[in-house]
Amino acid sequence: MKDRRTGNNQYLKEMNKSIVLDLIRTNKDMSRKFLADRTGLSATATGAIVKTLLNDEYIQEIGEGVSSGGRKPVILRLKPRSYYSVGFDIDERYIYTVVLDITGEVVYRKKLETPKRLTADETIETLYQAYFQAVNELVIRDDRILGVGVSIPGMMDIETKRIILAPNLGWSDVDLLNPLEEALDTTVYLDNEAMCSASCENWIGLCRNVEDFICINIESGIGAGMFVRGKIYRGFTGSAGEVGHISVDDKGLVCKCGNVGCLETIASINGMVAKAMRGSTSIQNEINVEKAFEELLQKARRGDSRSLEIFQEAAESLGKAIANLINTFNPQKIVLGKKFPDYADLVLETIRKTAQRLALSYPSRHVEIVSSPFGEDSSALGAAIIPLRKLFGK
Amino acid sequence: MKDRRTGNNQYLKEMNKSIVLDLIRTNKDMSRKFLADRTGLSATATGAIVKTLLNDEYIQEIGEGVSSGGRKPVILRLKPRSYYSVGFDIDERYIYTVVLDITGEVVYRKKLETPKRLTADETIETLYQAYFQAVNELVIRDDRILGVGVSIPGMMDIETKRIILAPNLGWSDVDLLNPLEEALDTTVYLDNEAMCSASCENWIGLCRNVEDFICINIESGIGAGMFVRGKIYRGFTGSAGEVGHISVDDKGLVCKCGNVGCLETIASINGMVAKAMRGSTSIQNEINVEKAFEELLQKARRGDSRSLEIFQEAAESLGKAIANLINTFNPQKIVLGKKFPDYADLVLETIRKTAQRLALSYPSRHVEIVSSPFGEDSSALGAAIIPLRKLFGK
Repeated sequence: MKDRRTGNNQYLKEMNKSIVLDLIRTNKDMSRKFLADRTGLSATATGAIVKTLLNDEYIQEIGEGVSSGGRKPVILRLKPRSYYSVGFDIDERYIYTVVLDITGEVVYRKKLETPKRLTADETIETLYQAYFQAVNELVIRDDRILGVGVSIPGMMDIETKRIILAPNLGWSDVDLLNPLEEALDTTVYLDNEAMCSASCENWIGLCRNVEDFICINIESGIGAGMFVRGKIYRGFTGSAGEVGHISVDDKGLVCKCGNVGCLETIASINGMVAKAMRGSTSIQNEINVEKAFEELLQKARRGDSRSLEIFQEAAESLGKAIANLINTFNPQKIVLGKKFPDYADLVLETIRKTAQRLALSYPSRHVEIVSSPFGEDSSALGAAIIPLRKLFGK
Repeated sequence: MKDRRTGNNQYLKEMNKSIVLDLIRTNKDMSRKFLADRTGLSATATGAIVKTLLNDEYIQEIGEGVSSGGRKPVILRLKPRSYYSVGFDIDERYIYTVVLDITGEVVYRKKLETPKRLTADETIETLYQAYFQAVNELVIRDDRILGVGVSIPGMMDIETKRIILAPNLGWSDVDLLNPLEEALDTTVYLDNEAMCSASCENWIGLCRNVEDFICINIESGIGAGMFVRGKIYRGFTGSAGEVGHISVDDKGLVCKCGNVGCLETIASINGMVAKAMRGSTSIQNEINVEKAFEELLQKARRGDSRSLEIFQEAAESLGKAIANLINTFNPQKIVLGKKFPDYADLVLETIRKTAQRLALSYPSRHVEIVSSPFGEDSSALGAAIIPLRKLFGK
């Protein structure tokens, strides 16, 4: 409405371009004629848009398709390695850089371990270097960069885009967006890491064409990104998806959030390691959680009963929380990601069975509970997908 | 897209009509000029739509507004008692009929107690009589009926619109829609009662202009209707909102769903009455739940400690489940309805405090937990609102 009122055609043109591009992206044999049919635009208008897209190298012609009578149609495809999108995942332990091309293919990835927590300023400096290293290595021209997406392990203010709280980074009320845009001189988008992971599954993963799904990230904590009707669901103030704080044990540990028996006290990496430590004879004040988790997992794989029990309890708790989510959300899929794929083989069946047993039968018969194919890459990939979504009007 | 392709303008005309009608509904002083500004349609096109709507008596002119220079604009309003929508709430104890006019005003209501559970056929016969009684009493012409909405205490198949299961009615796999449309000779819509209640709050209640909210109905069981981005959220197979089966007590009673300590075993009317009965010396096989609940409530109001404790436990369980919903869903409002308003004064503060204590602070600071103003009427009203939504393109 707004745009019709302004009487400005630029918006409509951009929208038509996005629609055409997205049809080419999602259909393997799009011709000019198909595009005209699908959009309702005239052959002339479609032709003009296609011409511009070809000139600007967003798309390419790839030979002829099957004719339905008359001239054989020329098939249009996105042009690989024509335009690029950069994604960063900022974690307490690393900064992960990926570059995708317009087709969603990963053309660059680099993980930089960070020995200590970085401040926001140090992070900007590090991202600056990582960005130009990637861009120079790939020899990407400025005008071929669609933008930068950044995955943040924290809560953001929907309006101001300030980071309200990122506990693992030790940040609160930080503006990363503006200084970073200034430093990189390109458009930057921030999003929560669980939202990024969900977006990744939706664009290139297990939830393509899935409207309603939940991606649960198992890491030091547990959070989820949710899609509703094909779009990220953020809730009223942008903090939806905090499934790590679903209470699953009223006699359980007090969580740092104040609730009792939160899922993440039992089923997060930190929760599992803490439980293993409580059972250990050696008391360590400073533990390397990642290393400790690796050891726990290896012990479980060797058949150590205490370690297996910890995974089993985590699986049952996840099953309980997932049963709640099935009952309330009735999702089509639930994807478990980040660290989860590393030990999915040990626990996935227990999670499925527990959820099936506890959830209502109708919605639980229709949900798939699966392990993410991306592991820890999903947030960086999802971040890089943000500028792609903008291009395709999604 | 689809409709541009067909090249049929009828759809666009209907859409424009709906948009104009909805602008008139939601704005108190809409003039032709404002309509043209807001829709982006030409003055001529707007004038033609307004003329049709006036001729068909959907709207009326109600004198002159304030001029911003030039001729004073004529204000347009929906015309009260011009078109009507009928809503039925089918409950195990009653059939409730309401009629709304186009403005959303209740112009008729009648509750028919049903001494025994009705079969689907008996229900159709009863609805037939109730419908013609209402229509005749109000002297409504056939062409002034926008349609009929029916609220069902059960799950529906999204595609076929068959009732999959309505446990309280004792129905499974029932087609109510087609025989009812045939009997009434008008368009009929079915929806789940919790969805109807949520729709009612959104159209004429506490959640007007609220995008993300949850309406929890407390009755013999507990269910919720949820809105996401201003629209009913149904989930993948239409069963979203089964919040009565959020487990809140691992050591609790086994629920009929198979889970343990489900919210509705503690906080539903049946749950509270059952607990009161277990503490009673007289064992009754056949109890009138409604009467028993009235007695329990009266005892609590008189200060009986056991009865107060039952309400207190129900409130704490609701607070726990609501904390889960706040964390996962981050809603703007949570409305508690149906039987709840009858005893909200006893429990609402405990629910709020419990939820605040257990939920994450950021989303819980931004949610309002309130009691519905409609009580048991919300489902019938929400059912009657379905045809109104269709008219206004919502």
